[in-house]
Amino acid sequence: MTPEKDLREQLATCTRILAMQGLIGLFGHVSVYQPETKTIFVTPGSGSDKPHFQADDMIPIHLDGKPLDGETLPPVEWPIHTALHGARTDALAVAHLHTPYATLFSIARREFHPVTLQGTIFGEGVPLYKEAHLVTTPQRGDNLLKTIGDHRAVLMRGHGIVVAGKSLAEVLFASMILEDDTKKTMQALTLGPIDHFSAEECRGFNAEIDFERRSRRAWEFFMRLESTWDRQGGTGKIELFP
Amino acid sequence: MTPEKDLREQLATCTRILAMQGLIGLFGHVSVYQPETKTIFVTPGSGSDKPHFQADDMIPIHLDGKPLDGETLPPVEWPIHTALHGARTDALAVAHLHTPYATLFSIARREFHPVTLQGTIFGEGVPLYKEAHLVTTPQRGDNLLKTIGDHRAVLMRGHGIVVAGKSLAEVLFASMILEDDTKKTMQALTLGPIDHFSAEECRGFNAEIDFERRSRRAWEFFMRLESTWDRQGGTGKIELFP
Amino acid sequence: MTPEKDLREQLATCTRILAMQGLIGLFGHVSVYQPETKTIFVTPGSGSDKPHFQADDMIPIHLDGKPLDGETLPPVEWPIHTALHGARTDALAVAHLHTPYATLFSIARREFHPVTLQGTIFGEGVPLYKEAHLVTTPQRGDNLLKTIGDHRAVLMRGHGIVVAGKSLAEVLFASMILEDDTKKTMQALTLGPIDHFSAEECRGFNAEIDFERRSRRAWEFFMRLESTWDRQGGTGKIELFP
Amino acid sequence: MTPEKDLREQLATCTRILAMQGLIGLFGHVSVYQPETKTIFVTPGSGSDKPHFQADDMIPIHLDGKPLDGETLPPVEWPIHTALHGARTDALAVAHLHTPYATLFSIARREFHPVTLQGTIFGEGVPLYKEAHLVTTPQRGDNLLKTIGDHRAVLMRGHGIVVAGKSLAEVLFASMILEDDTKKTMQALTLGPIDHFSAEECRGFNAEIDFERRSRRAWEFFMRLESTWDRQGGTGKIELFP
Repeated sequence: MTPEKDLREQLATCTRILAMQGLIGLFGHVSVYQPETKTIFVTPGSGSDKPHFQADDMIPIHLDGKPLDGETLPPVEWPIHTALHGARTDALAVAHLHTPYATLFSIARREFHPVTLQGTIFGEGVPLYKEAHLVTTPQRGDNLLKTIGDHRAVLMRGHGIVVAGKSLAEVLFASMILEDDTKKTMQALTLGPIDHFSAEECRGFNAEIDFERRSRRAWEFFMRLESTWDRQGGTGKIELFP
Repeated sequence: MTPEKDLREQLATCTRILAMQGLIGLFGHVSVYQPETKTIFVTPGSGSDKPHFQADDMIPIHLDGKPLDGETLPPVEWPIHTALHGARTDALAVAHLHTPYATLFSIARREFHPVTLQGTIFGEGVPLYKEAHLVTTPQRGDNLLKTIGDHRAVLMRGHGIVVAGKSLAEVLFASMILEDDTKKTMQALTLGPIDHFSAEECRGFNAEIDFERRSRRAWEFFMRLESTWDRQGGTGKIELFP
Repeated sequence: MTPEKDLREQLATCTRILAMQGLIGLFGHVSVYQPETKTIFVTPGSGSDKPHFQADDMIPIHLDGKPLDGETLPPVEWPIHTALHGARTDALAVAHLHTPYATLFSIARREFHPVTLQGTIFGEGVPLYKEAHLVTTPQRGDNLLKTIGDHRAVLMRGHGIVVAGKSLAEVLFASMILEDDTKKTMQALTLGPIDHFSAEECRGFNAEIDFERRSRRAWEFFMRLESTWDRQGGTGKIELFP
Repeated sequence: MTPEKDLREQLATCTRILAMQGLIGLFGHVSVYQPETKTIFVTPGSGSDKPHFQADDMIPIHLDGKPLDGETLPPVEWPIHTALHGARTDALAVAHLHTPYATLFSIARREFHPVTLQGTIFGEGVPLYKEAHLVTTPQRGDNLLKTIGDHRAVLMRGHGIVVAGKSLAEVLFASMILEDDTKKTMQALTLGPIDHFSAEECRGFNAEIDFERRSRRAWEFFMRLESTWDRQGGTGKIELFP
């Protein structure tokens, strides 16, 4: 069992990296699950100071969203986390992000297909949750769960994304990959018609690649970078959604 | 009655945040109204050093644009502020901004429709003021007032935007939302045809959300961020319009 | 007569501001003319350290491109400067820039028309110099002069721009305006068909505006900003062309 | 024979500059060849800290990819480097990069043609390597070699680019030029149909330009800039691919 202390540290670190990379904005949140105790650790909600998160700021909640201490409320969209952690054993980490580029696929009618080799981890597609609301009730959480199915990620219409994975390192890496792939799709389309990788090509590429190992490498790289970050994005220009 | 001291502090803070976020440029200005004394506090005009504004720099004027001290002139487009503060009780704060993305909707013929959940606060649309001049006379101010009607914001052709609200926090938050929504519209269109939220969906979403509370959260977050800003946007690259 | 010392100071300052704003890149150059002595002061050529330019680095040359000291060579495209300073009394300052956005109009077939109120100073259009070479001879300089005619600026195909003006402040301000207007044109086109200001609207707007005064305001603002610039664009990411 | 010490220094410097400019990301690598000893010096692989590379970090390998010390493994895509260094006498330096803009031409179906004067060094075109895998075997390296032929660069589908040159300075400069040209192509297309330089115009321009000399100038400029870089891209926002 991964000790609570480590889960809290990793969650705070992951969220600071997401803030540094401009992927979480003011209203995103991330969680990690301790299945042995059925406890979810989740970051504080809107307005909290993500670039300065520490292990102690993380909020432990039960699978029904109730805080363990009976007091400290999780983000209002906590049902995203409880639904996924409760139902999918491969969803030990969950991020709800408002990334600048992946979110565009929740606005445009174009279906997502990977255009980069790294993006082939999303070769099975990224479904769209269409409802025009925040996921603030367990029923909405269940609907989201039905939409994501066993995919790595789901788009939320005009809103953002949810990415699930076996570890925070995988969720961080997969979020960056989805962001990069959607950004490149958008930019390449300015050049005219584009190609994407076929399902077969996606499977072929992933059979050769150790995704977990690459996730850990990315995690170590960004952890090192984050350790000397000036906490302001340098420019002071942290975006809202972003 | 909100004391003058507080209004001045808030106005300077709001403008520094807008400068930090790259939303005001060299020629924008912001105001706040004290209805009990019919006094408008407005930021100094073109060329002034927005990243370093302090409470003492704010200029008090009457509803006819005359400076209270008889000397310190407000920005030449003061009739924007006097028109709105004088006529709309829900316009206690007014920002005239040259934001990079919202301004594009004053150039393209495309009508604005919200594509993000946050953007649904602009579900009633954002009208366009078409005249090719600066709003430098009370008559032009009245025309602008007719165009904006009871909307939250108005586009000014090839120029910028005006956003009105019940507080500076609301105006700041709404300006950021409009900027984000128009930016995402532009980018998503690169992917092909897009969807937007219907009037009904906008009303449904806003019925669930406490806009004022979220505005205050955003205000507190950016105030904290601004307090350690290096005053230069890090890169020193402050844009003109911007 | 403006003293040499002042011209040198202003030229170095102007170029540092252009470097800070990412408008000059590795290969651009700027000049200012002292008509009483028929002397041109020009910035050093490719590879020179623009963010650190000082008055002493400026190179004085004659109208035939020969250095006054017989030794220190000007940039290879000096005929741009000698042609304009020698022929146009309203071209006391000349900048050859590789700006990111205006340069796009030298690649696309679309004709330039101002889409912003500020851009109306270019209401008479911006012609295109089509030759696929650097302007390294007096004859090429003369051809460029014929192309620019009495316009404020000329586009150089797949290369950059030249902007002329009565002072360095005007050239700086006009360059920023052209950059902003072309950037907004490009971005607004992503939204669909766009409008531009008619020749009549351009004249009407400019009749109301004191361009010189606004240029001085912009100059003072950016001079103040530049004085505390970290000389690296913060990110260290100075672009080549840029 | 260029001493090993100098090759190591230059390779580390070149890679730090590429990191500073956002052209290499987490997974790129660069090499330089010492033909007299048939030794390749290559940068460490994925996850390594490129902004802090020093001469001692460089890995010497044989033309068959075996490390000289028998221990320190090169990046998994070492066959890119061995194939090119072994076969082309004009490929003394080789960079495998994941640049933001050039990579788009490996996704879109549009063929590359130079739109800038500098870009005319790629007047002979940039071929596309179509396979959906990493170049991890000598056979794949040979296929890549066949695709690049005697061109300066090759696009790798949904992946990145390889640039070869007579020196690290040339490879650095050529990479920046290709990046700039592809970026401007993409942006200019937003304005509508565009023009590019004909093969004849490319030859004419290059006959007048000393590419090596310009490469050295760029090298000196960026080396100076890099020497005071804050190692974080200022914003801490180093991208993954990037």
